[in-house]
Amino acid sequence: MRFARYERAGEARLTMFMDGELIDILDAVDATGGKFTEMAEKRAWFADMTSLIAAGPAAPEYLHTVENANVAHLALNDVRLLAPLDPGIILCSGENYWDHREEKPEVTAKEPEFFIKIPATGVIGPGDDIIWDKLVTQKLDYETELAIIIGKAGRHIPEDKAAEHIFGYTIMNDVTARDRQVKMRSDGTCQYALGPGKNFDSCAPLGPVIVTPEEIPDPQNLAISTLVNGELRQNNSTAKMIWGVAELVHYFSTFLTLQPGWVISTGTPGGTAWAADPELGGRPYERPDLVRANGYLQAGDQIVCRIEIIGELQNQVVVGQ
Amino acid sequence: MRFARYERAGEARLTMFMDGELIDILDAVDATGGKFTEMAEKRAWFADMTSLIAAGPAAPEYLHTVENANVAHLALNDVRLLAPLDPGIILCSGENYWDHREEKPEVTAKEPEFFIKIPATGVIGPGDDIIWDKLVTQKLDYETELAIIIGKAGRHIPEDKAAEHIFGYTIMNDVTARDRQVKMRSDGTCQYALGPGKNFDSCAPLGPVIVTPEEIPDPQNLAISTLVNGELRQNNSTAKMIWGVAELVHYFSTFLTLQPGWVISTGTPGGTAWAADPELGGRPYERPDLVRANGYLQAGDQIVCRIEIIGELQNQVVVGQ
Repeated sequence: MRFARYERAGEARLTMFMDGELIDILDAVDATGGKFTEMAEKRAWFADMTSLIAAGPAAPEYLHTVENANVAHLALNDVRLLAPLDPGIILCSGENYWDHREEKPEVTAKEPEFFIKIPATGVIGPGDDIIWDKLVTQKLDYETELAIIIGKAGRHIPEDKAAEHIFGYTIMNDVTARDRQVKMRSDGTCQYALGPGKNFDSCAPLGPVIVTPEEIPDPQNLAISTLVNGELRQNNSTAKMIWGVAELVHYFSTFLTLQPGWVISTGTPGGTAWAADPELGGRPYERPDLVRANGYLQAGDQIVCRIEIIGELQNQVVVGQ
Repeated sequence: MRFARYERAGEARLTMFMDGELIDILDAVDATGGKFTEMAEKRAWFADMTSLIAAGPAAPEYLHTVENANVAHLALNDVRLLAPLDPGIILCSGENYWDHREEKPEVTAKEPEFFIKIPATGVIGPGDDIIWDKLVTQKLDYETELAIIIGKAGRHIPEDKAAEHIFGYTIMNDVTARDRQVKMRSDGTCQYALGPGKNFDSCAPLGPVIVTPEEIPDPQNLAISTLVNGELRQNNSTAKMIWGVAELVHYFSTFLTLQPGWVISTGTPGGTAWAADPELGGRPYERPDLVRANGYLQAGDQIVCRIEIIGELQNQVVVGQ
């Protein structure tokens, strides 16, 4: 199944895709009808995406019964999609594709990298502006990532049980302020450190849809790419992750009780603008055809983050605060 | 004013202190009475701490009119206090007292350090157990910190306007997994990095009360100390911060639109267990009388975090998951 949120009269409404068109989930529930007490429960399930996720398998199963409800089918072009959920938190793993690791300074990690993006200020939806605040950064970079949506709470989740805790997948652009992500050493070289390089307003475009696992035969075999103004910049496969989806779910759950509606973003492949920036310790990328000198994002740039089966997340850069 | 939350019949209720005793805020509002529509607004203000904070100055001002309401006064010993709020996020600044900086490896920061603690899994209240999961860490450390509660939303807040954005102050114990906070270099030395060292279940004891600024003549002149089983381990003053409260509000707001109910924790002074741990790059602390060999937290330890005017935050260490 494919879930999203769209804007209707100023509110975020849940929608699901039917043969490429959308239906409003609450409208479909209402049109299907039922006993009053049942309806109240169902409406609560679909009040927002986190409720749907937290309701467990019963909620998507019930939706199969409303697929033929007599409600309007909406064309994708006629609605404004929003970020598909308000994540509880966004856990991120950097250094998770071999070729991205090679283009960074100081390759040191012997386990997944661990950092956090703040959803309340970071998340924006498909088509929304990435605000480039020049007081924050002169070096704004893109990172297309496969994002896992946690379905079921858990701690110390074994890798072979990870699938039970995954509600679905979407796309995140882990927008990064590169010059806030390194510290200069006294000798002028760069020490890799995260600082605010991963947290500023509009740094986490998310969407457009959440695709549930039965539509994704193998999350470790998805083409992943980035286009900036139509030019290919990243082009890889999730097969090249260092730590796969199940390993990351296991890893983060070692420390934290993962919760429904949390996001784990799985890192980005090589081809970031960083690779052409020795000033910040960036190291030449193995695919020079993808790299541009000073390839950092500029005002007006259109970024498309593409992952096979899931789709495309498009945003543009606007100077502002 | 002094605000807290306490548990009543399984629910978190807001309370304020009156001459050392507590009154239930919603009970006081109800006892004071008023027109129906006004009452609905007032009850919404005090539904939870973030609502009270987001309501702006009108909410605390109104509370002065209910101080003499005919409601029960509760003794502190008769209630179970909870963490005073569910923060939207916890922004943290490490390396913020000169003497703590000196006991750490690799002193590099030329601006405040920036990291995040996840509230949903981290925050526990006064008296709650700090869960020591030995799969997470062998080196659990304490860090008493002055925590700022943001009152009014803002971005790019100048230092001289910071006070307008502060609702109050509380205490945080920035419990840290030291062996998850450094990476080993190939040469066997330590590189400072945060990783999951600052994020695991129960890593953010918070409370007991939020004290509003009019009770704190100078937040940069508060005694701050830590006792472990009654032994003094940290003993300093907020006067020794590198970046003060106003500078930190300014700094974080450079990147993020600060929101009501967010917490900024201001770093810890020297005297952590790290100072006696050269294995993790810890460096001898200038006050050897405060430092214990292998001073990391052990099962059963009682930790008291004390800040002048605000009070004491007490928790104990329990082995578990």
